[in-house]
Amino acid sequence: MTKRVFNFSAGPATLPESVLLKAQQEFLNYNNEGMSLIEMSHRSKTFEAVLAHAKAGVKRLLNVPDNYEILFLQGGASLQFSMTAMNLKQDGKKVLLINSGEWTKKALKEIKKETDVEVIASSEEQNFLELPSLKNIKIDQESTSFVYMCSNNTIFGTQATEFPDTGNVPLVCDMSSDIMSRPVDVSRFGLIFAGAQKNIGPAGITLVIIRKDLAERASHNLASMLQYRSFISTDSMYNTIPTFPVYILSMVMDWMQEQGGVNAIEKRNQEKAAILYKAINTGDFYYSPIQNQADRSLMNVVFRIKAGEDLEKIFVQEATAAGLDGLKGHRSVGGLRASIYNAHPVEGVQALVNFMSNFEKKYQKELIKTA
Amino acid sequence: MTKRVFNFSAGPATLPESVLLKAQQEFLNYNNEGMSLIEMSHRSKTFEAVLAHAKAGVKRLLNVPDNYEILFLQGGASLQFSMTAMNLKQDGKKVLLINSGEWTKKALKEIKKETDVEVIASSEEQNFLELPSLKNIKIDQESTSFVYMCSNNTIFGTQATEFPDTGNVPLVCDMSSDIMSRPVDVSRFGLIFAGAQKNIGPAGITLVIIRKDLAERASHNLASMLQYRSFISTDSMYNTIPTFPVYILSMVMDWMQEQGGVNAIEKRNQEKAAILYKAINTGDFYYSPIQNQADRSLMNVVFRIKAGEDLEKIFVQEATAAGLDGLKGHRSVGGLRASIYNAHPVEGVQALVNFMSNFEKKYQKELIKTA
Repeated sequence: MTKRVFNFSAGPATLPESVLLKAQQEFLNYNNEGMSLIEMSHRSKTFEAVLAHAKAGVKRLLNVPDNYEILFLQGGASLQFSMTAMNLKQDGKKVLLINSGEWTKKALKEIKKETDVEVIASSEEQNFLELPSLKNIKIDQESTSFVYMCSNNTIFGTQATEFPDTGNVPLVCDMSSDIMSRPVDVSRFGLIFAGAQKNIGPAGITLVIIRKDLAERASHNLASMLQYRSFISTDSMYNTIPTFPVYILSMVMDWMQEQGGVNAIEKRNQEKAAILYKAINTGDFYYSPIQNQADRSLMNVVFRIKAGEDLEKIFVQEATAAGLDGLKGHRSVGGLRASIYNAHPVEGVQALVNFMSNFEKKYQKELIKTA
Repeated sequence: MTKRVFNFSAGPATLPESVLLKAQQEFLNYNNEGMSLIEMSHRSKTFEAVLAHAKAGVKRLLNVPDNYEILFLQGGASLQFSMTAMNLKQDGKKVLLINSGEWTKKALKEIKKETDVEVIASSEEQNFLELPSLKNIKIDQESTSFVYMCSNNTIFGTQATEFPDTGNVPLVCDMSSDIMSRPVDVSRFGLIFAGAQKNIGPAGITLVIIRKDLAERASHNLASMLQYRSFISTDSMYNTIPTFPVYILSMVMDWMQEQGGVNAIEKRNQEKAAILYKAINTGDFYYSPIQNQADRSLMNVVFRIKAGEDLEKIFVQEATAAGLDGLKGHRSVGGLRASIYNAHPVEGVQALVNFMSNFEKKYQKELIKTA
């Protein structure tokens, strides 16, 4: 068997090897039932148990209160930009949005189609290279339907460490790129959503955690597939659920529990990011475009090479050849990016740091030579 | 390895064993790249090749004309009930719907939320046990935005063999349960959609074939994720596509090509259905609730036991024990149902027919004894 490469992609992203091995082992004969899980009826008792197990895993890991429902939906975070507004908007009220990057900009565009929305904090003028300040935001309790934000900005590499106090107004948070990477107090949110393909599973399934009463805001005239209540009343089975992605997610939940739960995962994520940021900040060869240390993401570590873009291209080529995959920055910002989600092993970060050190030695010399 | 059972589920449904074996073999190391396809970036060249291959397979197998786009979307057929109306409706015009079963009833409910709709043919009064007659339907070319129908009714076991001539009005067809089970002239349709999980792949991906110009009817104010044009302009990659379901679908397309394409598949489907209907209609023990032979589905063979429901329950139990899984009829109609989609092997049908014969002998005697 070929050695596994270290996958630094922003998502879909690396999955725990033990989960992949188990899935492979039972791929043709799940639970000794003589068929693959991928061809099994979603209405079978066996699949219902898989779904219940996935849900119980999320509930336990995030300590989800009983007045919240855990849903597995289709359409990714991009459909949630619209669904949150379609379901949670209220007549005569508006959405307040914290604009921290490309994904909140896209959400803003979609929310505008459904209801009034106002940006109450933004770092767009700083090219999103810092988090918007929440110091002076005001959330009017009477005229606000909900507050919208994104906790981690995959493209720019910033991550919120504080969440605004919105009082009785529901806070809706896109946690697509840092869900379950650290503990959060779910009761502070009205709705949390996350595409699974970064921290908790494969592409094709979206986790939504919603305070149940909020689902009742939606008009019954909204398309049934776009109403959260359709999925609350059917345990995410209003129609055929993507069975295989849910199954993989359920095993990732088990793996996280085995790692010691979200607190242990957070500690490991902090250690991985610390190793990498230290390598970036030591010496004069690399740098982080995020000046404020507190704003730097533990998930998507964005960095640059001072000597310029040509050397960044060579870095990506040589890293890929060395078994370090997916280090190219997002096409909209360029540079380099190491996505080190939950399942990314510390060995991958160490290998990257070693590679960076050798790369620096190699090209530092050449830069001096040609200077 | 345990013997594979024969899976007669209505969907998700049995997949070709060769496809499953290949997926298992390369599950941890796709294309010798040191990672699983399920954890690979959807923006990688490797996955882009998988997507292109899936699309080329659909195009070749269904002979899709160049003015049509092949899309892979999320949300299943249920979201298409709404999306077709949201995108293809026109001011001052209405949708005409052919009501042939539960799925068109659900579509009717959703289309009503978006635009005016009129039922122009229905077999609801016949409990959907026959197809609606299309003899006297009139499709006004000026006042109709599109005509809506479903080609195969999974629950009741009927299947259309003719499609209405709608002139210049686009015909929208839900082919979720018989897509690629037989050749169709795509150019007669404005839009065809199908959840993949019956005939062409696993749950979690929906095939849409749309005449490109029709996508331009939609308001740009519709949520981007609900506009077909968002996916046409991005080759189904407006956001993260469910990578693994697309990959399995691409291999099912290869398998179909190896079988000789859709014409060969149709011939095999006809043979399988003929064996099964013959067993149902021979003797006096079983019967088909669909009196008109021409209306009987080749995909979902619904049948009953004359002696009644108690014996049907025993049939399901004993069949399951004998390795014939998923034969229980839909909960809304009861009875028995054998779904024998493209990938269901003829050996499964033969095993079922043998089981039926033995079951009849066993219980015919007991019925005579107790009579």
